[in-house]
Amino acid sequence: MGGSSTGEIFTVTTFGESHGPALGCIVDGCPAGVPLLIEDITRELKRRRPGGGGAATTRAEADEPEILSGIFEGKTLGTPIAIIVRNTAQRSADYDALKDVYRPGHADWTWEAKYGFRDHRGGGRTSGRETVGRVAAGAVAKAFLAMYGITIRAWTSSAAGITAPGPADPGFDLDEAERNPLRIPHRETAERVLREIEAIRAEGDSAGGIVSCSVTGLLPGLGEPIFGKLDARLAAAILSIGAVKGIEFGSGFAAADSRGSVQNDRPLPGGDTGDSTAVKITSGDNNIIEMSIHSDSNTVGAIGGGVTAFPVNLPTGVPALGYAGNNAGGVLGGISTGGTLEFRAAFKPVPSIAKEQQTVDRAGSVRELVIRGRHDVCVCPRAVPVVEAMTALVLADLVLLHRGARV
Amino acid sequence: MGGSSTGEIFTVTTFGESHGPALGCIVDGCPAGVPLLIEDITRELKRRRPGGGGAATTRAEADEPEILSGIFEGKTLGTPIAIIVRNTAQRSADYDALKDVYRPGHADWTWEAKYGFRDHRGGGRTSGRETVGRVAAGAVAKAFLAMYGITIRAWTSSAAGITAPGPADPGFDLDEAERNPLRIPHRETAERVLREIEAIRAEGDSAGGIVSCSVTGLLPGLGEPIFGKLDARLAAAILSIGAVKGIEFGSGFAAADSRGSVQNDRPLPGGDTGDSTAVKITSGDNNIIEMSIHSDSNTVGAIGGGVTAFPVNLPTGVPALGYAGNNAGGVLGGISTGGTLEFRAAFKPVPSIAKEQQTVDRAGSVRELVIRGRHDVCVCPRAVPVVEAMTALVLADLVLLHRGARV
Amino acid sequence: MGGSSTGEIFTVTTFGESHGPALGCIVDGCPAGVPLLIEDITRELKRRRPGGGGAATTRAEADEPEILSGIFEGKTLGTPIAIIVRNTAQRSADYDALKDVYRPGHADWTWEAKYGFRDHRGGGRTSGRETVGRVAAGAVAKAFLAMYGITIRAWTSSAAGITAPGPADPGFDLDEAERNPLRIPHRETAERVLREIEAIRAEGDSAGGIVSCSVTGLLPGLGEPIFGKLDARLAAAILSIGAVKGIEFGSGFAAADSRGSVQNDRPLPGGDTGDSTAVKITSGDNNIIEMSIHSDSNTVGAIGGGVTAFPVNLPTGVPALGYAGNNAGGVLGGISTGGTLEFRAAFKPVPSIAKEQQTVDRAGSVRELVIRGRHDVCVCPRAVPVVEAMTALVLADLVLLHRGARV
Amino acid sequence: MGGSSTGEIFTVTTFGESHGPALGCIVDGCPAGVPLLIEDITRELKRRRPGGGGAATTRAEADEPEILSGIFEGKTLGTPIAIIVRNTAQRSADYDALKDVYRPGHADWTWEAKYGFRDHRGGGRTSGRETVGRVAAGAVAKAFLAMYGITIRAWTSSAAGITAPGPADPGFDLDEAERNPLRIPHRETAERVLREIEAIRAEGDSAGGIVSCSVTGLLPGLGEPIFGKLDARLAAAILSIGAVKGIEFGSGFAAADSRGSVQNDRPLPGGDTGDSTAVKITSGDNNIIEMSIHSDSNTVGAIGGGVTAFPVNLPTGVPALGYAGNNAGGVLGGISTGGTLEFRAAFKPVPSIAKEQQTVDRAGSVRELVIRGRHDVCVCPRAVPVVEAMTALVLADLVLLHRGARV
Repeated sequence: MGGSSTGEIFTVTTFGESHGPALGCIVDGCPAGVPLLIEDITRELKRRRPGGGGAATTRAEADEPEILSGIFEGKTLGTPIAIIVRNTAQRSADYDALKDVYRPGHADWTWEAKYGFRDHRGGGRTSGRETVGRVAAGAVAKAFLAMYGITIRAWTSSAAGITAPGPADPGFDLDEAERNPLRIPHRETAERVLREIEAIRAEGDSAGGIVSCSVTGLLPGLGEPIFGKLDARLAAAILSIGAVKGIEFGSGFAAADSRGSVQNDRPLPGGDTGDSTAVKITSGDNNIIEMSIHSDSNTVGAIGGGVTAFPVNLPTGVPALGYAGNNAGGVLGGISTGGTLEFRAAFKPVPSIAKEQQTVDRAGSVRELVIRGRHDVCVCPRAVPVVEAMTALVLADLVLLHRGARV
Repeated sequence: MGGSSTGEIFTVTTFGESHGPALGCIVDGCPAGVPLLIEDITRELKRRRPGGGGAATTRAEADEPEILSGIFEGKTLGTPIAIIVRNTAQRSADYDALKDVYRPGHADWTWEAKYGFRDHRGGGRTSGRETVGRVAAGAVAKAFLAMYGITIRAWTSSAAGITAPGPADPGFDLDEAERNPLRIPHRETAERVLREIEAIRAEGDSAGGIVSCSVTGLLPGLGEPIFGKLDARLAAAILSIGAVKGIEFGSGFAAADSRGSVQNDRPLPGGDTGDSTAVKITSGDNNIIEMSIHSDSNTVGAIGGGVTAFPVNLPTGVPALGYAGNNAGGVLGGISTGGTLEFRAAFKPVPSIAKEQQTVDRAGSVRELVIRGRHDVCVCPRAVPVVEAMTALVLADLVLLHRGARV
Repeated sequence: MGGSSTGEIFTVTTFGESHGPALGCIVDGCPAGVPLLIEDITRELKRRRPGGGGAATTRAEADEPEILSGIFEGKTLGTPIAIIVRNTAQRSADYDALKDVYRPGHADWTWEAKYGFRDHRGGGRTSGRETVGRVAAGAVAKAFLAMYGITIRAWTSSAAGITAPGPADPGFDLDEAERNPLRIPHRETAERVLREIEAIRAEGDSAGGIVSCSVTGLLPGLGEPIFGKLDARLAAAILSIGAVKGIEFGSGFAAADSRGSVQNDRPLPGGDTGDSTAVKITSGDNNIIEMSIHSDSNTVGAIGGGVTAFPVNLPTGVPALGYAGNNAGGVLGGISTGGTLEFRAAFKPVPSIAKEQQTVDRAGSVRELVIRGRHDVCVCPRAVPVVEAMTALVLADLVLLHRGARV
Repeated sequence: MGGSSTGEIFTVTTFGESHGPALGCIVDGCPAGVPLLIEDITRELKRRRPGGGGAATTRAEADEPEILSGIFEGKTLGTPIAIIVRNTAQRSADYDALKDVYRPGHADWTWEAKYGFRDHRGGGRTSGRETVGRVAAGAVAKAFLAMYGITIRAWTSSAAGITAPGPADPGFDLDEAERNPLRIPHRETAERVLREIEAIRAEGDSAGGIVSCSVTGLLPGLGEPIFGKLDARLAAAILSIGAVKGIEFGSGFAAADSRGSVQNDRPLPGGDTGDSTAVKITSGDNNIIEMSIHSDSNTVGAIGGGVTAFPVNLPTGVPALGYAGNNAGGVLGGISTGGTLEFRAAFKPVPSIAKEQQTVDRAGSVRELVIRGRHDVCVCPRAVPVVEAMTALVLADLVLLHRGARV
């Protein structure tokens, strides 16, 4: 499979260079019958555009998607869905000076070491603009997952060295994340980070950060051991995003310093609340964070619109179960528990900085370099929809693969 | 592709349950002509066996491999290489009590939620014993990579909350790592951790830790953007190992709190030392950690035995280059820089603990549970060869995929 | 994916050289819960062994399979199923004389042109013995397909230039095919062919033939347009068998000389007979050969044992349908019609002949060659179970892929 | 992998419905550095357009391709190459009457049986127009193969029951094939067939035919045994084309009636003519049809422009070899011999005929049907570039896979 393709059943191929005619994707293997409108894609693309906020580039990217195939009368046909987005705001001349210079922290030289030459304009295929195709494809995956009641939400949990309150904090507010330019779910923190970002920009420098992601409504059983485990697939998907240097699930690196008696999430018997997506139990335990499914109908994946995802029933004889605590991050043995899936991804600082740097040019000579142009200071807020998109692509594929788990 | 298969050209399928007749693998797509002896596989399998040290289980596993195909007159044929290891030391009766109970921190219930039933004996396919197939396959990959001068070394860098000196510390000694049961590259630290491990064992508890991995001799250009990036592929491979909860490359999570001016590794012109695997430069810079390739022959991958890896020449017109520092961990834009590849993986504490735990049984009732049997306290030392094996599988595949990069 | 691997969900990797320690396969991706006994595999392997008849080699191959993994308490676990068959009757010395000679009609030279060297003993991996792994894997696929009521039957329809009566002929008897050494479904024809085969053997020559295959009980909807069409996938599977030089579906090559008004099979409304696997209609038409499914329950795939293959219901609003005639061979647009799937495969004569032939040796010199040893005269009867196995592998995979067709 | 994707390294995904906004493809995995112009694609697309001749539809399809990515300064970048072709000449209203009727010989009902609904306009994705994406992708593959000196030529060898002289006939003229609307390489035959086609059209009927294909300049060693054999991969590729009912290589079905002593092509020592793409030998044998490579440099794949395809050298110690005769069709053991690759594909008559037919509608009622619109009588001439394109896709992928055959 080519490097720009991913997935086994729900497969996606993205294409496009930063300053080429267009970017986009083909989603192949999406089941027939998923309601999908152009607005579903436009909305996600808009989220990845520069927000005008302090953390983001000020480029004007229209990013109007066009669906070329695969949709008929508002539903997916089961055929490939091709989506393109024209490039319109490119200023290629900005990059002329960089044609023969290898930018520090970028893939300019490794790309040439591999392919022999590169499209230097705007970073070509290595540009963050490449994520347009991912986000468009992710919008299709989200539409499919919505039929199962699966919801994916990501946010900036840390940036420029400042960490925002987490989900357990009363001040945590995911709606706020979509209101401020940093996508931080806590207004005061967002304002502090914004000031810090502006200071860093003034210094000609850039900042890293962490994007957290949480998936609710997930059915238990997703993931294909051994090599297609849920966390393995997600790790690949998230590490494929530019600038990501690490990922952790649940307790993550903290688990390395912990004890088994602390990390083992205690299983609890499932209790029916008549609500398959927000199940509570009645054991009187105060320490319960996650529960998954209800016991009487022994069914998961039922959703409001009357659609039932047939192959995801709990098998006969397997009891409903929840967990007290979520150190596992919603995955055990590479298979979803049905609880909230939780992971965090570390983003390095944007490598394009205005500060003078020393580098090497094509002739092998040392060169001083000052990078001009419209660059983000911290990539996290714009990475949020990309993290969601990549998560959606993995989950859509695993939902379909799961249909083959049992006779 | 089934969940127990991985790779695109150099593909591996592993098989085997903990208490079944045998475990093993098929390596398909290994090039013809790689020298391979049974000893190459035995050696690696021996490394993953319980060491008898404080951190490890005391099971006696012979783990004698048998090669069933793919080798002729000491060399790979280009046909599938099947390797099996018989199970001989299984005590299935130990697990009878666990048949209808879902162990905390294990995949017992998620497995049933997916497949409907499970082989409860020794954890079945979810057992750490599953890694026998990975390690055997990894030995084949290592033999292939050795022809390129690529060396993979992993070690326990932290365990039970105690961190060992790192590669930059003068006391760091990788040979020592293979001499102590914890695979910690520093004798005094190893002894401290051993004492701590014994204390944890006495409490009926278990410990987590971190395994670090370093790859030298790597040619630049490996990795298949966008979705098959070097770090993305490695992340999937490492997260597919049981108990891993996170991975980071180079500066990793620390990069999230850092600045671009700090994280950008400065490119340096390549200088020839006549030694393609340990290149130095002469710029007088004291901050140089990594250099990759030499400039006069414009060739990488040449190895002692006169074998030259043909498709990995630096393309015409692309200068040799090294980097001052390695915050990148040897990968930029998902492509190897030619410098040392560096990553760290977090392992959670072993979930099988002797301490009493509360859980749920198949009837959905709450149960008290005490897990008996021969279990590791900390999985890290035995995970070291598994991390190396998975790294080798990814690199072997990417070396072959790289052959398709240019005309 | 390595060359010895096939399938997307139900994936198979075979291994083994003719004179190596063992041959076999791993089936990965078979759903959990399929009843499977060692006898299911032994029975199929026995069918591909030399029958002792005139057409077959007289080698004694025990071919006792051993299941190493993936089965627990008589059912598939959802984990990889590894099956091995030890080589026991090899006489490698027979092949010493052929070590440096390229046999006409064989892959000796092309193999070396590709891989640089080969295992010359018994043809190595190019031997017909390689099909042991296919047949073992096919037995697993057949067990899975049996749960859907799908039955695959192949037979020798032509050999040594003599064609047997076809299914439309009253003398056609598939049970007879399993009773005579040529697997010809007509006793008199079989006897004639046997005499002809003996005459050809006496001349030191060999003969070709045709194997026909028919699949009943197939649900409509199988096949993944565009490139994974049912007939495309089957064509690849059958052409991958040694000695096959062509394949045709339904009318096949005869359709090239025909007219649309003749070739178009007329659709007929479905009528319920209460028997989902052998449906008749009541339109009074005398020309009806094929019908597929019944209309009242709008369900297919239900089988005797009470197991219903959930995702293969006809969608709401799609009427049941049958076809008068089967020029299509059971496939339209690459998707199964629900009627009988029919194809024919042409096998070239066995290239190992006792007659003196001229060839070239490793030094590039012309050599006279007489091939001795135990060789089939006509491969068709032993190819019958191989054709069935490959068909089963394709169908098992397509059944699972079909589960992803609709929401 | 989704059904509209094919290939392992050189991968292609096509998209598009007959009456949707556009059709096209993404080629992912094409090596960097292949010269490619828009004209290369336009030329091939023009070949598949209706020719205006007697055999073809009279629709006006402009089919102007646009390259959206993957090309920079006239060469492939190593990134995905996206190509789109807008639909402009659709008359969807022509198909309103067919919305609820299942056309005989078409995939209307099987498509609905699979996906639940369909885009009925112009056949949607089942239309022959779907081949636009294949032909565009094939043009990229051809550009890549041209660097190896590989040439693919297909032609109509039989149509409407009339067979044209073959390559061995002195009147055979491939240039003529591109001059007449039937793509028959013999003018008189083409004229006869044209008259017959017109007569069939007048009857409201349609005709089948055979397309032959020949590949020269092919290096030996292509093909990935066992399941990725050259002929197996080609069979899948060709059978994936609509209306194809069979394929045969070399002697094909005729081999089934033949003897080994006749079918075995005699190996001959290679002789150098200083011309790597058209090698002759000097053994005085009059029966020589095919020879492959020259012996002095022991190199294949060298081409005029000074580009040498590095991994395709004959391995050390393997002599150059040719074959007297080509019953094998250029493939032995699933690996190319280096001789001419030859196969033939049978096309059924176009199922859309003007003659009245009986069929069934969505309500399950019998309906009389007369199909109006612009339809080909015989699909062969327009299938010629599609057969070439599919062949090119397979060969490009196998050339790249072959790079992994040896160390």
